[in-house]
Amino acid sequence: MPDYYKKSIELHQKLRGKIEISNKVNVASKEDLAVVYSPGVAQPCLEIEKNQELAYDYTIKGNTVAVISDGSAVLGLGNIGPKAAIPVMEGKAMLFKKFGGVDAFPICLDTQNSQEIIDTVKRIAPVFGGVNLEDISAPRCFEIEAALQEIGIPVFHDDQHGTAIVTLAGILNACKVLGKNIDELKVVVNGAGSAGVAISKLLRCVSMDPIKCQSVKEIIICDSKGIIHRNRTNLNPVKQELLEYSNPHNLEGSLQDALKNADVFIGVSKGNILSAEDVKTMNENPVIFALANPEPEITPEEAYKGGAAIVATGRSDYPNQVNNVLVFPGIFRGALDGRAKRITPLMKLAAAYALANCIDQPTRDRIIPSAFDDGIANKVSNAVANSCSTISNHNHNRI
Amino acid sequence: MPDYYKKSIELHQKLRGKIEISNKVNVASKEDLAVVYSPGVAQPCLEIEKNQELAYDYTIKGNTVAVISDGSAVLGLGNIGPKAAIPVMEGKAMLFKKFGGVDAFPICLDTQNSQEIIDTVKRIAPVFGGVNLEDISAPRCFEIEAALQEIGIPVFHDDQHGTAIVTLAGILNACKVLGKNIDELKVVVNGAGSAGVAISKLLRCVSMDPIKCQSVKEIIICDSKGIIHRNRTNLNPVKQELLEYSNPHNLEGSLQDALKNADVFIGVSKGNILSAEDVKTMNENPVIFALANPEPEITPEEAYKGGAAIVATGRSDYPNQVNNVLVFPGIFRGALDGRAKRITPLMKLAAAYALANCIDQPTRDRIIPSAFDDGIANKVSNAVANSCSTISNHNHNRI
Repeated sequence: MPDYYKKSIELHQKLRGKIEISNKVNVASKEDLAVVYSPGVAQPCLEIEKNQELAYDYTIKGNTVAVISDGSAVLGLGNIGPKAAIPVMEGKAMLFKKFGGVDAFPICLDTQNSQEIIDTVKRIAPVFGGVNLEDISAPRCFEIEAALQEIGIPVFHDDQHGTAIVTLAGILNACKVLGKNIDELKVVVNGAGSAGVAISKLLRCVSMDPIKCQSVKEIIICDSKGIIHRNRTNLNPVKQELLEYSNPHNLEGSLQDALKNADVFIGVSKGNILSAEDVKTMNENPVIFALANPEPEITPEEAYKGGAAIVATGRSDYPNQVNNVLVFPGIFRGALDGRAKRITPLMKLAAAYALANCIDQPTRDRIIPSAFDDGIANKVSNAVANSCSTISNHNHNRI
Repeated sequence: MPDYYKKSIELHQKLRGKIEISNKVNVASKEDLAVVYSPGVAQPCLEIEKNQELAYDYTIKGNTVAVISDGSAVLGLGNIGPKAAIPVMEGKAMLFKKFGGVDAFPICLDTQNSQEIIDTVKRIAPVFGGVNLEDISAPRCFEIEAALQEIGIPVFHDDQHGTAIVTLAGILNACKVLGKNIDELKVVVNGAGSAGVAISKLLRCVSMDPIKCQSVKEIIICDSKGIIHRNRTNLNPVKQELLEYSNPHNLEGSLQDALKNADVFIGVSKGNILSAEDVKTMNENPVIFALANPEPEITPEEAYKGGAAIVATGRSDYPNQVNNVLVFPGIFRGALDGRAKRITPLMKLAAAYALANCIDQPTRDRIIPSAFDDGIANKVSNAVANSCSTISNHNHNRI
């Protein structure tokens, strides 16, 4: 057992829960009780009854996010169920607090039925200012997130958009390093699960003032059966929709066919599926995002052998780690501060650009900042909060 | 506006949430991240997947209770809805932590449909070690609590059982003070809502080893239409069931008719409905529990004028306050420590006897301890945890 597995068990046995509820003021007397609880508490209750928005000002709602999972796709462990998912969701809550100052509470659901998950999240929403969906398997994650967009608080599936935002930030900085323009890039995404779909959508976003983001020139998306093209008969509705903005020349074939003359490879699939020889078929100075964990699609060593200019992975022991913790604390901090009713594409783009700009001078080994760099969440949250105020001018729901 | 209303608004405006999530350990490095979160966290996840009980040992489940309300019967404010109920549920969570060391999180539900509440609680149960139902109106509270008894974690409607347990403790000590036997008492309960029903059931419990509790001799229950008797045609199923253990002589008439020769009056109804003249018709040395808030059914001054021997109210500015905070922190602390799957009648009785015994020498003005007396929750929780271990020998589901 590697050292951190052993240490993690010891820590969990010792702590018996990595987070706890703390009272912000002491309750030391009958007088205190009459103020924090009955009868004094009736007054804020009555004011909220009259003006429901005051719940944000008088209660935890203004700073609290639910971390919701059904345990169906936990880390790389698969469908381990809601109780086994709790340690991950607690960990997530810790990172929300540590990096974003957000109070997050784990809710692990004893159902994997999409409609039941949707109903449950709607019903428990009043006390929360946002919902972070976590480790819910595709394609259910798409319909669940879509159905929850109108509940009046931001709902964000981190496995999709967190990964997509960090990836876009990395690509922006890779372009800086290599002197390329993002709108000239041909990108191959391998994996059409939650992350692959969200990355593809975000990279193909249209230009949006005030951020002036540009979409990549062309995306080809592959799943385990090869390139997703219009003549395939085995595509689910989510994959069919991907064809609206991918594979413009309707290329057929394998991942290897897709890679020829591509500028960027983004793997959100499984380990060891790409070789140095494959990388050699790509355009000059190719950029490799090999995000499968713990085994990347190709090791950085092998990718460089094939001529890669820049390599990012999901691992902390290589440079350029694509780590969602760079995004979710800041994006929810910003959404809460801006009192957003939903997370818009503009907010995601603002987060990606802010994250990229956390690095003044990107280099091959530093296109993505480290989670422990100073002020990351702060910069992301400011950009996100600012973009909330302009959302009424935009209506981009496709990303 | 009374002072504590004003102070309460100021406090809520300042705190913006009276509780928060705290991390039990710092996350200061990539190494820390690898232990509290990915990849190390996979190990406790996999162990829980194999042995679900380990969720109690490795996660917050072992110490965490959901405080669940639909906002339908909040304090004396009525149906103010889930958002307006949040300040109360947060306050409750504070008291759980302060007095019981229990981590409690408020869940306010955007539905008042019983079946939807039941479904929702079941689905969010995995992360919790117990459920405190709160401020849910009668008669829905009864069916909701009953339906949730088999979900594998203790479910306790505090408005019912918290009040009942403190009341029983007070009656036990009143008997000590007055030299009466509980099994000789004739008790009148005015109010057939959540508290009235639970008090009646608990007072009529049958003798249970190892506690050797005794039931009161006779209970007559009144609602707003007078005595509940067998010839009434306007009784809902809950009130019909009350007749199985109340009103043995099928007395008809008003509250005043019921009071004649009664030893104890328990009001869980509304203010100013009892006079000194009414008290005079009771047996010698009558005991008055006038629990309506903020206006009791009769003021202590008036009750003493009518010859009352002992008076308890729900108010903190009179002696003998019936306050649920004397019970719920200890009962959940004990249930969690005993890893109870449900709250049994025996556990409730154990709590009542332990609470009564917190006072060595009860007097007229001290039949019920104060919430701020030392060690109350500790004594209650020890008694409750001990009674968990014997639950397999008992099967008393009616209380």
